[in-house]
Amino acid sequence: MASLDEGWADPARLYKEGRRARLLLDAAREAAAEAVGCRPDELVFTPSGTRAVHSGIAGALAGRRRTGRHLIVSAVEHSSVLHAADAHEADGGTVTQVAVDRVGAVDAREFAEALRPGTALACLQSANHEVGTVQPVAEVAEACRAAGVPLLVDAAQSLGWGPVGGGWSLLAASAHKWGGPPGVGLLAVRKGVRFAPQGPRDERESGRAAGFENLPAIVAAAASLRAVRAEAAEEAVRLRELTERIRARVPRLVPDVEVVGDPERRLPGIVTFSCLYVDGETLLHELDRADFSVSSGSSCTSSTLTPSHVLKAMGVLSEGNVRLSLPPGTREEDVERFLAALPGVVAGVREKLGAPVSAGEVLTREGDEALVVDALGRRCPIPVIELAKVIGDVPVGGTVRVLSDDEAARLDIPAWCAMRGQEYVGEEPAERGTAYLVRRVS
Amino acid sequence: MASLDEGWADPARLYKEGRRARLLLDAAREAAAEAVGCRPDELVFTPSGTRAVHSGIAGALAGRRRTGRHLIVSAVEHSSVLHAADAHEADGGTVTQVAVDRVGAVDAREFAEALRPGTALACLQSANHEVGTVQPVAEVAEACRAAGVPLLVDAAQSLGWGPVGGGWSLLAASAHKWGGPPGVGLLAVRKGVRFAPQGPRDERESGRAAGFENLPAIVAAAASLRAVRAEAAEEAVRLRELTERIRARVPRLVPDVEVVGDPERRLPGIVTFSCLYVDGETLLHELDRADFSVSSGSSCTSSTLTPSHVLKAMGVLSEGNVRLSLPPGTREEDVERFLAALPGVVAGVREKLGAPVSAGEVLTREGDEALVVDALGRRCPIPVIELAKVIGDVPVGGTVRVLSDDEAARLDIPAWCAMRGQEYVGEEPAERGTAYLVRRVS
Repeated sequence: MASLDEGWADPARLYKEGRRARLLLDAAREAAAEAVGCRPDELVFTPSGTRAVHSGIAGALAGRRRTGRHLIVSAVEHSSVLHAADAHEADGGTVTQVAVDRVGAVDAREFAEALRPGTALACLQSANHEVGTVQPVAEVAEACRAAGVPLLVDAAQSLGWGPVGGGWSLLAASAHKWGGPPGVGLLAVRKGVRFAPQGPRDERESGRAAGFENLPAIVAAAASLRAVRAEAAEEAVRLRELTERIRARVPRLVPDVEVVGDPERRLPGIVTFSCLYVDGETLLHELDRADFSVSSGSSCTSSTLTPSHVLKAMGVLSEGNVRLSLPPGTREEDVERFLAALPGVVAGVREKLGAPVSAGEVLTREGDEALVVDALGRRCPIPVIELAKVIGDVPVGGTVRVLSDDEAARLDIPAWCAMRGQEYVGEEPAERGTAYLVRRVS
Repeated sequence: MASLDEGWADPARLYKEGRRARLLLDAAREAAAEAVGCRPDELVFTPSGTRAVHSGIAGALAGRRRTGRHLIVSAVEHSSVLHAADAHEADGGTVTQVAVDRVGAVDAREFAEALRPGTALACLQSANHEVGTVQPVAEVAEACRAAGVPLLVDAAQSLGWGPVGGGWSLLAASAHKWGGPPGVGLLAVRKGVRFAPQGPRDERESGRAAGFENLPAIVAAAASLRAVRAEAAEEAVRLRELTERIRARVPRLVPDVEVVGDPERRLPGIVTFSCLYVDGETLLHELDRADFSVSSGSSCTSSTLTPSHVLKAMGVLSEGNVRLSLPPGTREEDVERFLAALPGVVAGVREKLGAPVSAGEVLTREGDEALVVDALGRRCPIPVIELAKVIGDVPVGGTVRVLSDDEAARLDIPAWCAMRGQEYVGEEPAERGTAYLVRRVS
């Protein structure tokens, strides 16, 4: 509020309001640099975390163009990183996506193996934005250092909790992710890193972020980063206990739930789980009615939710996906209220979904050994519900063939098999859509 | 303030705070589109006016790449437009800068003559940001329409006063220029205009402005635009009278002043003048001490001020340049206080500057007909002061040769000649710096 009154002027101007704005900007830069762990002249403010990522990747790639045009990213980066990688590929560059394991983490050795002589830049998030899994940044940074490749760390999810350790070369973050205002991102570029800003430039922010600085928001961003950091250690312990409670109790309270992400190496305030036989959007709306604002990585039911590339890369169930973000200050009683409400909400959604599909969709019975389920035209979670209904109808060793044209089935049918201990045989093209083959094991 | 409380959530989310944010965003877009005079789906919010210009130019050029890579801009566009033109040129495109007359206006016919078969885009500001001159946008738009070339109008200076008439194709503006918050620009792209957004994209703002929307600022921007528009007509009359008063009285109160810009076709609240024998930075600091916050297009004395490309293109004096911006609500008594203070301030600066150069710098006396003044190493306004001191020492018809290595002399010596009715003969390279030749006429 104070910076709205004090910081409206142009810091490039010489009159007193401009000089005051310059002082505020300098002070904000120093505070932010201290929190990041870099020099003030290595850090610029951008209009958003996304713009920090886009500018950082474009500038680092251009700065090392002579070395090569190979870019490495993890498969679970924020979309801003993946969009920048897409743009690089469209421009003739090459991109390697490093896979993640079932909890969403890259393997540092596997990441290092992607490094090659023509690698211009590698990107790795400090922690995942959907499932909270912390990435092995220090090990990856060490491998990049040894290979002479700069590492850009997207620290959007973790900067409020503490600085990113390890020898990163570039770092991007977003103020609204640590509870600061929208309209401010950070881009830090270590001295010595080759960097060539792309696009039109001006004299602001060392030529790395064009346009009139959003000074009130920048001041608020720096102040809020300092404020959340002051309570980060204590709050991390408290939120970690609350998310641990959710991780432990949800599978006991709700049948057929998969909690995803690393149980140990994770952010304090994010917890994500997926519920079989539930569509994410309906679940989200029902929770909203109960006054819980959650996100979902499901693509069920309607086009308003897009399937999560993170859950896909992890190979875990996406249907009925719920992502809880507990901001600092979240009260224990709200968590308890959520845990009390969830079972009824999920049961209600399942009941609703169960009804329209109660008439068997089994069309062809090929002897006793194989069943075909036609789920064409039906959206997630219907194909999985149909599969679950008929798996008991074939003998152990028999197969069910699920026909589906819903993209989510590709992820959710194998995930269901893993959860249920059934064998996922594979997929093959069908006359319409895709056929997913499941063998009954138990 | 209300939108900081109400509009913090992500408008892409489905929970109630997200839906409320979406409603706020939609309402802001409708209000802004109405003020611009376009459809809501033609308008996106960007992080600044500069980003709107950069994205608009890049997208329009890419959209018409098959037509050609020729870009037309006026010579007095905002630096954001010229930077985008530089980037286009660096990328292999061609750029034509259309000159302006002595009041800073382009000639619509001359602008039209720059159009050619390979022209992808033309850019013209609605009004100039330094001298307030209004450009003939409607005529230029008509010529562009006839040639099938889209016209991008940088309306940053004028949008608060009213919509831009004429058949523009793209329009850019900046909220903080109309008294709104920093962090918000507008980019309108008319339906049917070929447009290919450049750089990494995301799903926000129709793929034309990536990154989390700065919703509180967007809401405040739309509200403030509506508010200033409600009083624009009345306030324009009042401010125009105040700036007219400054334009008329400054030359009477202060000797050797040139008021610049169009006396009629101009913005209500901007007035710019240049004072001979004064350096802009000292003048600015002295006015600041008297509680007036003004800008300057001078490059005198130190590197903190860069020479104005606008004054240069107009061919007017840049030394001792003062730009007054009267925001809506400026009080008459403040204008009177300024007019009362200015003569003393200018006189004081002139006295200070006169002292160190009182010892004649005349080095060589080549007969009676020619004098050489060595002003090498001396910054503006010293070269002009030296010239003025010795012009009386040569007979009518005689010449003074001023040696200078200050870039401002190239602009200010011809401008002084025009103000003083002396003949500017031309410049030629000297052993050090440049020699400027002036013939005494009167």
